[in-house]
Amino acid sequence: MQNKLKIINDPVHGFIKIPFELLFDVIEHPFFQRLRRIGQTGLLSQIFPGANHTRFHHALGAMHLMFSALETLKLKGVEISVKEEQSALLAILLHDIGHGPFSHALESMLLEDWHHEKLSLLLMQELNREFSGELSTAIEMFQGRYHRGFFNQLISSQLDVDRMDYLKRDSFFTGVSEGNVNSERIISMMNVCRDELVIDQKGVYSIENYLTARMFMYWQVYYHKTAALSEHMLVKILRRARELSLKGEALQASEDLSYFLKKPRTHTATEEDLLRFTRLDDNDIIQAMKFWQHAGDPLLSYLCTAVVQRRMLKTQISSAPFPTDTIDTLVRKSGTMLPSIPGKSLVGEISRTLLPYSKDLQPIYLLRKDQSLVRLNESENQILSSSMVHPTTKYILYYPREIV
Amino acid sequence: MQNKLKIINDPVHGFIKIPFELLFDVIEHPFFQRLRRIGQTGLLSQIFPGANHTRFHHALGAMHLMFSALETLKLKGVEISVKEEQSALLAILLHDIGHGPFSHALESMLLEDWHHEKLSLLLMQELNREFSGELSTAIEMFQGRYHRGFFNQLISSQLDVDRMDYLKRDSFFTGVSEGNVNSERIISMMNVCRDELVIDQKGVYSIENYLTARMFMYWQVYYHKTAALSEHMLVKILRRARELSLKGEALQASEDLSYFLKKPRTHTATEEDLLRFTRLDDNDIIQAMKFWQHAGDPLLSYLCTAVVQRRMLKTQISSAPFPTDTIDTLVRKSGTMLPSIPGKSLVGEISRTLLPYSKDLQPIYLLRKDQSLVRLNESENQILSSSMVHPTTKYILYYPREIV
Amino acid sequence: MQNKLKIINDPVHGFIKIPFELLFDVIEHPFFQRLRRIGQTGLLSQIFPGANHTRFHHALGAMHLMFSALETLKLKGVEISVKEEQSALLAILLHDIGHGPFSHALESMLLEDWHHEKLSLLLMQELNREFSGELSTAIEMFQGRYHRGFFNQLISSQLDVDRMDYLKRDSFFTGVSEGNVNSERIISMMNVCRDELVIDQKGVYSIENYLTARMFMYWQVYYHKTAALSEHMLVKILRRARELSLKGEALQASEDLSYFLKKPRTHTATEEDLLRFTRLDDNDIIQAMKFWQHAGDPLLSYLCTAVVQRRMLKTQISSAPFPTDTIDTLVRKSGTMLPSIPGKSLVGEISRTLLPYSKDLQPIYLLRKDQSLVRLNESENQILSSSMVHPTTKYILYYPREIV
Amino acid sequence: MQNKLKIINDPVHGFIKIPFELLFDVIEHPFFQRLRRIGQTGLLSQIFPGANHTRFHHALGAMHLMFSALETLKLKGVEISVKEEQSALLAILLHDIGHGPFSHALESMLLEDWHHEKLSLLLMQELNREFSGELSTAIEMFQGRYHRGFFNQLISSQLDVDRMDYLKRDSFFTGVSEGNVNSERIISMMNVCRDELVIDQKGVYSIENYLTARMFMYWQVYYHKTAALSEHMLVKILRRARELSLKGEALQASEDLSYFLKKPRTHTATEEDLLRFTRLDDNDIIQAMKFWQHAGDPLLSYLCTAVVQRRMLKTQISSAPFPTDTIDTLVRKSGTMLPSIPGKSLVGEISRTLLPYSKDLQPIYLLRKDQSLVRLNESENQILSSSMVHPTTKYILYYPREIV
Repeated sequence: MQNKLKIINDPVHGFIKIPFELLFDVIEHPFFQRLRRIGQTGLLSQIFPGANHTRFHHALGAMHLMFSALETLKLKGVEISVKEEQSALLAILLHDIGHGPFSHALESMLLEDWHHEKLSLLLMQELNREFSGELSTAIEMFQGRYHRGFFNQLISSQLDVDRMDYLKRDSFFTGVSEGNVNSERIISMMNVCRDELVIDQKGVYSIENYLTARMFMYWQVYYHKTAALSEHMLVKILRRARELSLKGEALQASEDLSYFLKKPRTHTATEEDLLRFTRLDDNDIIQAMKFWQHAGDPLLSYLCTAVVQRRMLKTQISSAPFPTDTIDTLVRKSGTMLPSIPGKSLVGEISRTLLPYSKDLQPIYLLRKDQSLVRLNESENQILSSSMVHPTTKYILYYPREIV
Repeated sequence: MQNKLKIINDPVHGFIKIPFELLFDVIEHPFFQRLRRIGQTGLLSQIFPGANHTRFHHALGAMHLMFSALETLKLKGVEISVKEEQSALLAILLHDIGHGPFSHALESMLLEDWHHEKLSLLLMQELNREFSGELSTAIEMFQGRYHRGFFNQLISSQLDVDRMDYLKRDSFFTGVSEGNVNSERIISMMNVCRDELVIDQKGVYSIENYLTARMFMYWQVYYHKTAALSEHMLVKILRRARELSLKGEALQASEDLSYFLKKPRTHTATEEDLLRFTRLDDNDIIQAMKFWQHAGDPLLSYLCTAVVQRRMLKTQISSAPFPTDTIDTLVRKSGTMLPSIPGKSLVGEISRTLLPYSKDLQPIYLLRKDQSLVRLNESENQILSSSMVHPTTKYILYYPREIV
Repeated sequence: MQNKLKIINDPVHGFIKIPFELLFDVIEHPFFQRLRRIGQTGLLSQIFPGANHTRFHHALGAMHLMFSALETLKLKGVEISVKEEQSALLAILLHDIGHGPFSHALESMLLEDWHHEKLSLLLMQELNREFSGELSTAIEMFQGRYHRGFFNQLISSQLDVDRMDYLKRDSFFTGVSEGNVNSERIISMMNVCRDELVIDQKGVYSIENYLTARMFMYWQVYYHKTAALSEHMLVKILRRARELSLKGEALQASEDLSYFLKKPRTHTATEEDLLRFTRLDDNDIIQAMKFWQHAGDPLLSYLCTAVVQRRMLKTQISSAPFPTDTIDTLVRKSGTMLPSIPGKSLVGEISRTLLPYSKDLQPIYLLRKDQSLVRLNESENQILSSSMVHPTTKYILYYPREIV
Repeated sequence: MQNKLKIINDPVHGFIKIPFELLFDVIEHPFFQRLRRIGQTGLLSQIFPGANHTRFHHALGAMHLMFSALETLKLKGVEISVKEEQSALLAILLHDIGHGPFSHALESMLLEDWHHEKLSLLLMQELNREFSGELSTAIEMFQGRYHRGFFNQLISSQLDVDRMDYLKRDSFFTGVSEGNVNSERIISMMNVCRDELVIDQKGVYSIENYLTARMFMYWQVYYHKTAALSEHMLVKILRRARELSLKGEALQASEDLSYFLKKPRTHTATEEDLLRFTRLDDNDIIQAMKFWQHAGDPLLSYLCTAVVQRRMLKTQISSAPFPTDTIDTLVRKSGTMLPSIPGKSLVGEISRTLLPYSKDLQPIYLLRKDQSLVRLNESENQILSSSMVHPTTKYILYYPREIV
């Protein structure tokens, strides 16, 4: 018997098996191959130089965890058909297909109200046409319309395999071991009760550990003050480039990026929008920033130089908003740096908020030995969750290094 | 649905699932629990202090790899029944059940010609009686009598999951990363052709890497000069203790160990032999050596003190046998150390031989794309195997540290 | 130049270098070699079969972390003399030298009020005599009498290298990755301010992560209900064996163990006490329990059989003490199991309490950029510590499996 | 004392410390920051999707290993001054500074005979001017002109820290664990004898394991048939783009890339050449290939589409050159695919040759206990090296997937 089982190397999970041919065909599609050129964590590599991993790899990793979760549930006696298995794998494989370059930073920038989930759905529907309807159940699962809720919960909830893969993967590539969640253990504690995803009670500490790991990843990595600043600068750069483009200024950029810079934002996507969108990737943005270092506009040029040469602005972080006085003084000091652009400043404040565990929105349920369910934070066994139900906000003040 | 799936923590493979209840019942049996008190690598912890892992854990780990191998083969289209799966897992779980304390060192010491495989079979048959014949197919697979050969090859061949687990496990616990075989990759390359175990051709380098890793583990770990010496001393200790016991000297030891020390060796095992054997473990031997440090016999006392207080003899290693002259001189020098025991010496030579790849005995076959088979060392893709078909021998000379 | 630098393999930290010859001589001493036969985590291997690592390896690992911490502090400009470095390494190497077999379980059992720290000191003083006073500064550091406090804080505080090694090591060998503390990162954040050990402010999350990892290790591993039960049973076994021995009953045991079983407890140790103590190790206890399975006393025999054959009692865990009724009912049910021993029962309740972060006793100080210090839980950057300053207690009810 | 010790996260080595301020200033220089945008392994991520690591991270990793090697040598008694230490760290940090985008593939493409070492030297000299001569000793070490040879051998030899880092790093990010060299162990075996780098004899197996690991990395990763093809296609793409540009055809590309495409190759670099070179990175090439998918030239367009959409050509690998017949037939079959370009073909053969251990060019010396030296392959302890002194060549045939 010839080995047709495709496997892909993954330093995070070992080997990723592609158990169905349809999955492999979807992976080979240019929509999916594009994800090879879209980083998973944007400019985070400015702070954590190992973080160059891609959405392509993340999507495969999440699919691997889905496979593992379904195998475990089957061993526990949950009935799952081949069609359901294939569809769940397709759905998670494609859950991020709509991500654009530096996606979280830019998703609402190019098209009004365009979240990546909406774009993912559009692209999945397009693929479904190309694959003669074989993705229909996957799309139902993705949208939460499939009658067995746990499939959607595995794709999108506080315990979905998407989060589990990206936390583990981001931890791996940044080298911040604090976020190395034990996905294998969590999956081994999964169960299904009345078609809902639940956790066996004895897994309570693993879940709490996962929630704290996630919290540490947010504060140490995703919301790291320089990381938050980088993302913010990227948004400012694209926003400024759009402003200038819409005013008619010529900015060097790839044709597809120029298209979006000059296009008034709309609520719906034309076919051309979609086509051009699927041709964009991180290279278009980085190449543009390299060009714009030499742009005539001092704001755009300053910000792009800062990003490309990694001469970041200065930052301070605090648990309370910075006093208006402090900000005003910095604005005044930096005033002469952008003389020609009234109303623009290189000083500002960013905030980041995290809710470690959302007890109300899709709560996590524990399955007791007597088959009853209890919410994680109400479980008598929990040791930390009840302290994690309130959001925390941190404030980041930034200003040019020249004025200190 | 309640989670009845048992899982056991394993730092080597992550989590070990026990997919059948019968497996769990066998694990709970005192025969199997005894393996918790039998180290996998004897006195190796004298040199590699992390190597305290047990045959209990190894047996579980090998079972885990068997599960993984069968899952892979099924994904590649090999038909495997539930009965076959359960039997293969039982067979590998029990493949080492007949190991006694410090087994490789002592297995032929207590009973004439008693290899652990023979004892394993006896104990498996005893368990089969207790479990009403449910182990019959497992025993057939273990003995190589089952009609589909690949099950036995997974249990015992140059690519069996037993080796794969112990190399990986010993590498892990010793900290000698050179032996960390990529079991997951090798398993993903396994296939079945005419009911024989083969390797997909593209796995050729993984197999060669596995063979070199094994070779390094032998020379760096198992045949490390001090490791070889420790094992040799243990054999000498037990042999001397038997000699003295048979001569009627009273040596302090547990009742079960005393039984074997005083018993003339036989070719068959009585029921009492078997019963007493299953009560012995490493503690009996270590405790005895602690006692025997103070024995009247100077040889026994010297050797036991050396092991317990880790005041090892001196060693030299060479690719050729040591000249008789050299040995004689050392024997003469050390002559006064054991005045009362003519014919016994603290000087000697040990040899260790390794054949990295046995091309004739159960060769490894590669499966070409055209479905033909080729022996590994004859494959045109091999880069190293053809240099690994000859045995190498090393010689270790030892002598007391007092005479240098 | 010949390589005299000794290195020891350690799967946890890679390689452990022995940078001073005196350290190596101490390691070779029988007092220290004895630690090879004393497990780090007692009967924990009953639940986590990989946990067979020894106090010998832990002591070396802690020494490695001490070396690493001192190198880091020197790179940050802290002056540390060669004498201080050697002494700090000696002190941490020997910090556990006074541990007996299954130590936490048994330390107060054999001698009244004999904590291992007290025994460690006695043995260090003995070694100091043998090594002509070269350990004097090490002993000062161990006792906290040395004038630069941070040396003692590295040996014994909420951030000492002892804890850091055992958490990391126990996590590694149990396979419970939740406890894999990032010792390298924590060490890189260490600093010294006015001779006290402090943490650079930017390390706040690493410290909090370390505290939560520790908390999870306690509840998932050390205070795991079956682990707590095993430890408790061991105490009961030794207590019962003493009771019987003192009443004059003959119990099979090694000579050194018998000595302590029959000896009335005292507050001071004679020379013989000390000598015999340093000959005891885990084998004496395990071998005794194997014998005592067949003891005439039904309590002793029941408990020893349960441990040796791993037929543990049943347990339930709760955040509140179990109702007296519940316990009484179980006591009554099990009443017939030990008819001959009035007042003894196989039913009972154990409790375990953990204070995740002790804000008052040796608090952790953060060093701000402006050189001021702030307590961890009062830092405005902390995100979890302030929820970790209260102790939690859990209750474990146990009863024989026969009565359910 | 404030922590000025900079540390950088590295998932491969843990934490990288920057022990001198000058090192940090060099890292912040735009020449060095540019390496963030140059992948370490070119198009390898097409086959191993985790391999997106950069030359920036590799240079830091190699510096880390240099630091570790120097610390070990100092512990063994080798005298190394602070100036020497700083210079060795600078030299290894900058050893790859001259790499251009997809460097191995393109280095001789843009400028005649321009190896990256030559460019590295030019850029190091430029930096030396900017840093007032502080890099002079580093440059001497880099060039092998410094009087103590082992510094250069640590930078460039069969055992240099450059190789050690890239093998370990590439193994880590590709997930091909076969190449995970034990750099820590090899470094611990390093020594210096008469100012030359040697290996303590007992490290013989570690060195042999390192050489086999390197060999496996070459055949499994670097010379993987699709990897070799990708690199080859990239060369063909750039060569074709140059051809067309020099003929005056307009090809969309960044200004700096266009400059080199249109410039006749010279043997020396002008200041403009150097300036423009330091502005190029992988993005320029990728963006160009995205444009050129739509180029008028069918060869350029075919190849770029194949790379960007990962629709690779087909390959076969063999230990012997493919018969001319076979190639001719394929050329003929594919003839109609590029009708307009006589003399160009989509069919071809690539070869790759590896010498696992070069016994003559900078051989590895083992230091015996008696202080004499012996070449690795002549050591009586070696078990594999003598089989690794001959080069192996493999041949890769490629052709369009359309003609099969």
